Amino acid sequence: MAKAPPIITLLTDFGTRDGYVGVMKGVILGILPDAQLVDITHEVNPQDLHQAALILSDVYRYFPPSTVHLVVVDPGVGSQRQPIALETARGRFIAPDNGVLTHVCMAEETCHAVALTDSAYWLPTPSRTFHGRDIFSPAAAHLAKGVPLDDLGTPIEELVLLKLPPLSITPDSIQGEVIRVDHFGNVLTNILPLHWEDEATLVFEPSEGDQAGTPLRMAADSTMVTFGWQNLTGIHHSYSEVEVGQRLALVGSGGELEIAINQGDAQTTLSINVGDPVTLYFKPAVP
Amino acid sequence: MAKAPPIITLLTDFGTRDGYVGVMKGVILGILPDAQLVDITHEVNPQDLHQAALILSDVYRYFPPSTVHLVVVDPGVGSQRQPIALETARGRFIAPDNGVLTHVCMAEETCHAVALTDSAYWLPTPSRTFHGRDIFSPAAAHLAKGVPLDDLGTPIEELVLLKLPPLSITPDSIQGEVIRVDHFGNVLTNILPLHWEDEATLVFEPSEGDQAGTPLRMAADSTMVTFGWQNLTGIHHSYSEVEVGQRLALVGSGGELEIAINQGDAQTTLSINVGDPVTLYFKPAVP
Amino acid sequence: MAKAPPIITLLTDFGTRDGYVGVMKGVILGILPDAQLVDITHEVNPQDLHQAALILSDVYRYFPPSTVHLVVVDPGVGSQRQPIALETARGRFIAPDNGVLTHVCMAEETCHAVALTDSAYWLPTPSRTFHGRDIFSPAAAHLAKGVPLDDLGTPIEELVLLKLPPLSITPDSIQGEVIRVDHFGNVLTNILPLHWEDEATLVFEPSEGDQAGTPLRMAADSTMVTFGWQNLTGIHHSYSEVEVGQRLALVGSGGELEIAINQGDAQTTLSINVGDPVTLYFKPAVP
Repeated sequence: MAKAPPIITLLTDFGTRDGYVGVMKGVILGILPDAQLVDITHEVNPQDLHQAALILSDVYRYFPPSTVHLVVVDPGVGSQRQPIALETARGRFIAPDNGVLTHVCMAEETCHAVALTDSAYWLPTPSRTFHGRDIFSPAAAHLAKGVPLDDLGTPIEELVLLKLPPLSITPDSIQGEVIRVDHFGNVLTNILPLHWEDEATLVFEPSEGDQAGTPLRMAADSTMVTFGWQNLTGIHHSYSEVEVGQRLALVGSGGELEIAINQGDAQTTLSINVGDPVTLYFKPAVP
Repeated sequence: MAKAPPIITLLTDFGTRDGYVGVMKGVILGILPDAQLVDITHEVNPQDLHQAALILSDVYRYFPPSTVHLVVVDPGVGSQRQPIALETARGRFIAPDNGVLTHVCMAEETCHAVALTDSAYWLPTPSRTFHGRDIFSPAAAHLAKGVPLDDLGTPIEELVLLKLPPLSITPDSIQGEVIRVDHFGNVLTNILPLHWEDEATLVFEPSEGDQAGTPLRMAADSTMVTFGWQNLTGIHHSYSEVEVGQRLALVGSGGELEIAINQGDAQTTLSINVGDPVTLYFKPAVP
Repeated sequence: MAKAPPIITLLTDFGTRDGYVGVMKGVILGILPDAQLVDITHEVNPQDLHQAALILSDVYRYFPPSTVHLVVVDPGVGSQRQPIALETARGRFIAPDNGVLTHVCMAEETCHAVALTDSAYWLPTPSRTFHGRDIFSPAAAHLAKGVPLDDLGTPIEELVLLKLPPLSITPDSIQGEVIRVDHFGNVLTNILPLHWEDEATLVFEPSEGDQAGTPLRMAADSTMVTFGWQNLTGIHHSYSEVEVGQRLALVGSGGELEIAINQGDAQTTLSINVGDPVTLYFKPAVP
């Protein structure tokens, strides 16, 4: 079998109306003509590092670990913020050092990073307004082509991390907030990761950063999710467990607590927005 | 010459703001790294099976017959609706059994379908909210990689079909309706297929499902298309046969009766919408 | 190393809601299954030849010169306008002869063009409404596959060119206009190309078409950019040289004079639109 083509994904806030993404791909293909290029999204809200970091977090685990993920949401282009490359067991990353890799760094045990200081792997005479074209894309292509990470520049010890909204955990409640709304209007919270132990029992695994402890086991039927003046009883497995047009709380495909309307738009109908607090009240499940 | 890479197309209602499409591609490339991935569209209106089925119908005939078309418009995810694979002489398909393959089944003589029951071709522990990632994408990758269709699951005899709006055909008229409006505002009807016999003569081929008979031959100049209180005389060959800004009826690129404005937006200007009735009156052409 | 796959880029006004772009890719892959397909954009405003021509101009130089750029913004489809192929030292092009290649023709020294008259390289029985599918895509695939340009049709001497807005140049000012606004709301003018000689000195290179002369060397600090009743002092190197929310003039990534707001939307905030006049006043730099 032929050797698999190197995969490079692209995640930006460039939109798709201009030629910016195309230019980046042209630069990559000039260096690595058989790259397998995959667009994650180019519709990150302009300069929204939190949104970009969350989307990246959902996506990279599903790609082969040799994949190079090129992330260009870069409000500080031309300033002192550094362009970096990061290597982990489940993926490699090229991005500005501005926090877009926060979730990756938190989830991966081994993170090795360098600043992209070696101009041999840039385009000649880079601009100060489009490092996506002049620095990030060529570096990604060289990395995917086989250049060792350490050749791209000098090691750095600490990366810039985003300040994430904390969870407040008690023996019978978890309070978090809305962190993202998807294309369907489904409302995603930072109350995660949740998984089903069986049809009736849900398990929450507190992370190190939170008030960690043993996993919390909940009776799904007797939970209540509250937001604003509204509340929802029970956690569901799928949208179709309720009638079309009915609202529900469920475990989303990324293991997060999600508020949705079956075949509807929960954000608009329920007027919930990013940053709004959400609380999950529960009764411990009897093992 | 190297072996051609297997083609997988993607058609969803996922939008392009989130990472959902990227995740599906990651799963596919994990199984089939040299796949040639082609986005058809991800902007189907949420849960709009009719729209998805029509777009698929326009597209699949133009791809090599070995192509796997992955269609994920799936309002019933997590319910009893089955995930299926379908093989025809002009393309292979992975989709939920909810009617999105209706036009394919009607157009193709041989349709062989299986339910995707063999979990060996899924991701481990599939969610109940994102079968696009957990079942459809891996199945599409395995099928494109060479796994025989029958290995994916158990044969099924009857597929779910959408109820399509019927045509009402008389010796001098065909009544149908608007079924789609495209990006330009061109208005497409279900009065099809039409083709030109010569510059002046148009031929309509009734399908089996309609009041079939011999093809209807029309004098293009003397036809009249009516919708609401409006009407258009004559069927044109191309937009540029009328002045910029003028409205016209013509034969669309898919062989359908189309209402358009040369370099304008017919839907907005003429206030026509999906579902509105359209009638084509004609005089039989003298052979 | 394996032979690099032939690259074909696509630039259209088709949008991404319909199957039109997918159909074109299906046709290409039927002829050239291992094509490396790259979307530039499909969101050109319908029939906007100026916008398409500018985007193409920004993009093609960054691709390998063997790339075939397929441009389908084609308001005259079905009329007498000719489909053409163009070969230059930095790229090959398939497009309607309606001016979308204007900037390419002006920038490239050698331009060799043919009309796509040989129907052996079209789909059989082309429609009169979708030459993108029936003529342009198959021609692009054959060209990328190795068919010599001259086999595609008969040479043509003169291409249709767009009338571009002129610059008005005096010893201490350049007057141009806004020609494009990007996804971020950055406002791009036709005052170009500008480049930095050093941190403080900007150089403008008049093109042949303008009131040509020797390059103009400006002291960046003492320039003033005026538009409407507004003005901006100094030309900056990057957005981050001013505070978030502050407006600035800078040299854009394509070498054009650009008006922007750091992390903001200049078009909306400053109410500037395509076609508005912009003047750059300057003091000559002392060498």
